[in-house]
Amino acid sequence: MYKIGVYGASGYMGGEAVKLILEHPQFELAWATSRSKKPIAYFHRNLLGSRLRLVHPDEIGHCDAVLFSLPSGNVMQLAPGFIKQGTKVIDLGADFRLKDKADWERVYGKKHSSWEMTEQAVYGIAELYRNEIKQAKLIANPGCFSSSVILALAPLIKHDVIETETIVVDGLSGTAGAGAELDRALHHPELGNNILPYNVVDHRHIYEMEQELGYLTCEKVCIHFTPAYVPITRGILCVIHVFPKKNIEPTMLFDLYQELYKDEYFIKIMDMEKQDKASWQYLPYPWVAAVSGTNYCHIGFDIDQRRNSLVIFSVLDSVGKGGAHAAVQNLNIMFGLDETLGLTRYGSHPY
Amino acid sequence: MYKIGVYGASGYMGGEAVKLILEHPQFELAWATSRSKKPIAYFHRNLLGSRLRLVHPDEIGHCDAVLFSLPSGNVMQLAPGFIKQGTKVIDLGADFRLKDKADWERVYGKKHSSWEMTEQAVYGIAELYRNEIKQAKLIANPGCFSSSVILALAPLIKHDVIETETIVVDGLSGTAGAGAELDRALHHPELGNNILPYNVVDHRHIYEMEQELGYLTCEKVCIHFTPAYVPITRGILCVIHVFPKKNIEPTMLFDLYQELYKDEYFIKIMDMEKQDKASWQYLPYPWVAAVSGTNYCHIGFDIDQRRNSLVIFSVLDSVGKGGAHAAVQNLNIMFGLDETLGLTRYGSHPY
Amino acid sequence: MYKIGVYGASGYMGGEAVKLILEHPQFELAWATSRSKKPIAYFHRNLLGSRLRLVHPDEIGHCDAVLFSLPSGNVMQLAPGFIKQGTKVIDLGADFRLKDKADWERVYGKKHSSWEMTEQAVYGIAELYRNEIKQAKLIANPGCFSSSVILALAPLIKHDVIETETIVVDGLSGTAGAGAELDRALHHPELGNNILPYNVVDHRHIYEMEQELGYLTCEKVCIHFTPAYVPITRGILCVIHVFPKKNIEPTMLFDLYQELYKDEYFIKIMDMEKQDKASWQYLPYPWVAAVSGTNYCHIGFDIDQRRNSLVIFSVLDSVGKGGAHAAVQNLNIMFGLDETLGLTRYGSHPY
Amino acid sequence: MYKIGVYGASGYMGGEAVKLILEHPQFELAWATSRSKKPIAYFHRNLLGSRLRLVHPDEIGHCDAVLFSLPSGNVMQLAPGFIKQGTKVIDLGADFRLKDKADWERVYGKKHSSWEMTEQAVYGIAELYRNEIKQAKLIANPGCFSSSVILALAPLIKHDVIETETIVVDGLSGTAGAGAELDRALHHPELGNNILPYNVVDHRHIYEMEQELGYLTCEKVCIHFTPAYVPITRGILCVIHVFPKKNIEPTMLFDLYQELYKDEYFIKIMDMEKQDKASWQYLPYPWVAAVSGTNYCHIGFDIDQRRNSLVIFSVLDSVGKGGAHAAVQNLNIMFGLDETLGLTRYGSHPY
Repeated sequence: MYKIGVYGASGYMGGEAVKLILEHPQFELAWATSRSKKPIAYFHRNLLGSRLRLVHPDEIGHCDAVLFSLPSGNVMQLAPGFIKQGTKVIDLGADFRLKDKADWERVYGKKHSSWEMTEQAVYGIAELYRNEIKQAKLIANPGCFSSSVILALAPLIKHDVIETETIVVDGLSGTAGAGAELDRALHHPELGNNILPYNVVDHRHIYEMEQELGYLTCEKVCIHFTPAYVPITRGILCVIHVFPKKNIEPTMLFDLYQELYKDEYFIKIMDMEKQDKASWQYLPYPWVAAVSGTNYCHIGFDIDQRRNSLVIFSVLDSVGKGGAHAAVQNLNIMFGLDETLGLTRYGSHPY
Repeated sequence: MYKIGVYGASGYMGGEAVKLILEHPQFELAWATSRSKKPIAYFHRNLLGSRLRLVHPDEIGHCDAVLFSLPSGNVMQLAPGFIKQGTKVIDLGADFRLKDKADWERVYGKKHSSWEMTEQAVYGIAELYRNEIKQAKLIANPGCFSSSVILALAPLIKHDVIETETIVVDGLSGTAGAGAELDRALHHPELGNNILPYNVVDHRHIYEMEQELGYLTCEKVCIHFTPAYVPITRGILCVIHVFPKKNIEPTMLFDLYQELYKDEYFIKIMDMEKQDKASWQYLPYPWVAAVSGTNYCHIGFDIDQRRNSLVIFSVLDSVGKGGAHAAVQNLNIMFGLDETLGLTRYGSHPY
Repeated sequence: MYKIGVYGASGYMGGEAVKLILEHPQFELAWATSRSKKPIAYFHRNLLGSRLRLVHPDEIGHCDAVLFSLPSGNVMQLAPGFIKQGTKVIDLGADFRLKDKADWERVYGKKHSSWEMTEQAVYGIAELYRNEIKQAKLIANPGCFSSSVILALAPLIKHDVIETETIVVDGLSGTAGAGAELDRALHHPELGNNILPYNVVDHRHIYEMEQELGYLTCEKVCIHFTPAYVPITRGILCVIHVFPKKNIEPTMLFDLYQELYKDEYFIKIMDMEKQDKASWQYLPYPWVAAVSGTNYCHIGFDIDQRRNSLVIFSVLDSVGKGGAHAAVQNLNIMFGLDETLGLTRYGSHPY
Repeated sequence: MYKIGVYGASGYMGGEAVKLILEHPQFELAWATSRSKKPIAYFHRNLLGSRLRLVHPDEIGHCDAVLFSLPSGNVMQLAPGFIKQGTKVIDLGADFRLKDKADWERVYGKKHSSWEMTEQAVYGIAELYRNEIKQAKLIANPGCFSSSVILALAPLIKHDVIETETIVVDGLSGTAGAGAELDRALHHPELGNNILPYNVVDHRHIYEMEQELGYLTCEKVCIHFTPAYVPITRGILCVIHVFPKKNIEPTMLFDLYQELYKDEYFIKIMDMEKQDKASWQYLPYPWVAAVSGTNYCHIGFDIDQRRNSLVIFSVLDSVGKGGAHAAVQNLNIMFGLDETLGLTRYGSHPY
């Protein structure tokens, strides 16, 4: 049993991390922190009846790995101390995601106080960086939209089949993605029967997408990304519009995805050709509710042959495969365990 | 008082038409049809207590104008008879929307039996065709997504400020847009906490958008449009990504919209520069809940100067400004009445 | 045209009052107040494009009537000044609803500074106090749950057909009823797929129900009322369980309701016997969505002959017939206008 | 590993059973049936990527236990054959729940063809019938509302602290409880922002509640139960109003519940006295979202000392502790396994 600490357990991401560690067959929760003295069930009613007590950050002890879920700017100060003691660190936030310091400081609006650590940080998408994660001491877990878009576009960009400068993405997010902080726009009467565009241009996650997809091509990658909250509680759907460099057939597209993902336990590609479309017109496209609460990512697509464009859909849970579940997948890899341990359960239906 | 008939009153669009005619100061409901013998409140619980009785199509009498809300292919057979008797016709469906017969027959999958009438049909967006509507005997009321996108892009395309071949639109729709017909994907347990992409490429409304926006430019217009149902009951939001031909400033963009719409009662442009963005980050973008149940269309935008792209938002109600309310606006014009009669009410907050 | 002021226009109730006055054919909005300097569309996006400017309470001028929408304890200080100047006052809050001072002070947790005014206040249910409202200078508009329950039980208690000490009510409320104030339990991720019991015993509205229903009988009235928020945005449904003193038939029950309400424009009784139950099992019971945004109250019922109990359903909108719409109905009466002016519109379907 | 069959796997209850068996450490899915030839992911998108193939009922082979999820009337015909072969049977439906034949036949509207089996059927609430379940060959798994109400009232009735003839229950259900069958009232545009009372009196589950609670007292038990669908996807909340025979204190009430449930893994009692009520007014009452997707039941309560009544809240998931999860708990017991195997996971937050 490895001892895992969760630093910042009162938010949705930290709460999901706690739940996963509590249920994991090889991990033990060393501690989970909160500056409040309220019981865990105050923050996470699902954990009612657990004996877990949240502790103040000053009271924490040793652990083998720590998951940070804190506002940006905090982990760059805390991580070095843990790493020095041999503790593995996963930052669920953004402090070590970008490799360009000027970009980071502009985008996050502050100075970065331990930039040298960024260089040893591995970007935590196991499907792309499995070997590096095995050796890593510090993981920069990706943003939720970034995970969704990078997983969906990696096969296409790697094989040079699409224009990389005209990628358009609408990111539809459940409200868990907004976090537990109160906000008038997230007040139920406002959003309950509404749609809420936010951070409409230059969203912070774009920089991760452009950076990571840029490593797969020598061309410039430019992502036009706009998010909106829709009144679902969990999960995100990215609708991605791209333009193929030449004609492309559905089966070819499916094969491209399978080549990269056929052995990936958590990535499922929907093959529209093999579906009985007539029986249910909605079948070929991913449904976000199917992956809520899980570490799965479902990817599907369609081709507009008349207008020569592709639509790629990618669904995952922002605190699942786009967050705490992916972090546990990374922990499993870092400790040499079966990568799927504690993560194989299917989603609920209905969710 | 003009006598108005509603042909097909059991669906959401027909029900909204009935409600508007019942409440209109200058119109009187001549009749509303249904092949079922159920009372009106069976179909539209909001009309409980009204004395209105639905009649079988065989029982209808004379009226000054008729609003059709029927599946495609029906109105092309029924409209000629009404027009011959001097009755004005508004088709809320698609029988007369396209000007290219081959397109229509391919897209709607059937032969068109009265194509010659299509030539006299006026496309029912008052803001673009007010003068033609005044004289019209037959109005082809636009599709809901078409209205939203055409209103949002007309100023930009007319002034030649964007690339017309790379227009990407995600259309997020409330479930009223799916109609009253049962469908497994619209069953509450499936969609209640989910998002549902559908008709992902080559949606029928694209042809209207390309046709109408094509009249405003000599360049080819190509729209990459993908719709999805989100779990709200009413209204649609179109998120439109376009690429400016040259640098563009927010104030200039605002002025372009104002030039076309400043005297339009039902079109409101949100001016992001004049807003106190700091006070509420969600303020500058349109909210679909604000226009549900109304004839208003709210348009807003943002500029990504770093990536040289624009995001345009356009919200309206698919059975409001994108349907029955727009039809009543057209009726007002056809009868020489104040165009806003019966349509000026604001939306509800919350909706 | 009468000049109406709205004192407290930033909340949902005040916003609805503003909207109704703006749309009313005989009323003119004198002013609407807010202590904030934000534009009206910041608070009520549905009013985007209206020229209305909110004013500070210090800047208000004369008006013929004022609608107060303020936290309890404020109106008892402000109302006397207005009434002295001949302005009619409607308090949408609770300052003048109870006739027992000790009850009021205990329930609202403060001293009442102008109790003598309470005696001249008329409880604002037009269906019960129409004549008193005509003469009134001060109206205590009822609580939303109170309106729903009182309207539903008045015929039964008046005719002495039910046990008055064992009345059990569950009140299911849309989140508009919680007001615009942020609250963690109303944060969308918490409530979006959840149900939220609150004020589970001894809710303040119980005192209004017991007081008003008590006037209709010489027996003691005791209401066991528990509210819960459900994830809808508007409207309330009260499910009322009562025990008949003797056997009762559906038609007899229907007649009791019709006797009191048959000439009431805004009260609709659903007659289960006349419905074709087989065709749609949900038909006989009221749907809250049908009355959202309106001044209607739909009442329905069913009888458990095996267990000798009745279930009464009563739906209305907490800011509609349970709030600002009822206040406008009262204003119409106070000014000798047609009582239904500005209030006759049907609800939307879907809502 | 025990081989388990799921007979009827296309509905929500059968799908949940399949998922639980697939994830269970000691069970293996022998087969799952459907008369359709569609793939499992057509019915249950969450299982996308599983290799499971649904089989026609004619193709099934041997198994150690079978879970039936079929419309009432089917299992009474199928169960005897399985039991004869030594297969343990759990009926998730209603064929063996009632002990009074006349009641069953009237309530379910058909003749019962194997009533003698009913006598050996054990009502599947482990917390009440653990020893009987150990020996059982046939389990009648309870209805969802029945589980919720019986668990909530058993301690009170057993200790004779409440009036048993005046028990009033409102049952608020997520739409998964309505099943996968399409129904106009469950169509998203109708229910998305609405509340839907149904089976308002004499609901079938009442007979289970009265039967099982009747075994705990020599008094007559009479339940006045009314259900309604609210627009959440999973889980039910029962709001139970009862009248104590004498004064009762919160701590005494808590102790009564703890006496029965303190060693029960899946029942959590919320102790309002130990909560910091001031910090969060919603804390003391159970939230249905906290138990969705799980085998937990959370029970809470409040006391109206002024009116001498109690409100008991009981939440569980209709296909969880009120369905397939409880069935797996029973299977664990029947096979002598740890009762909690495969069922210990917490719910998601948010759900």
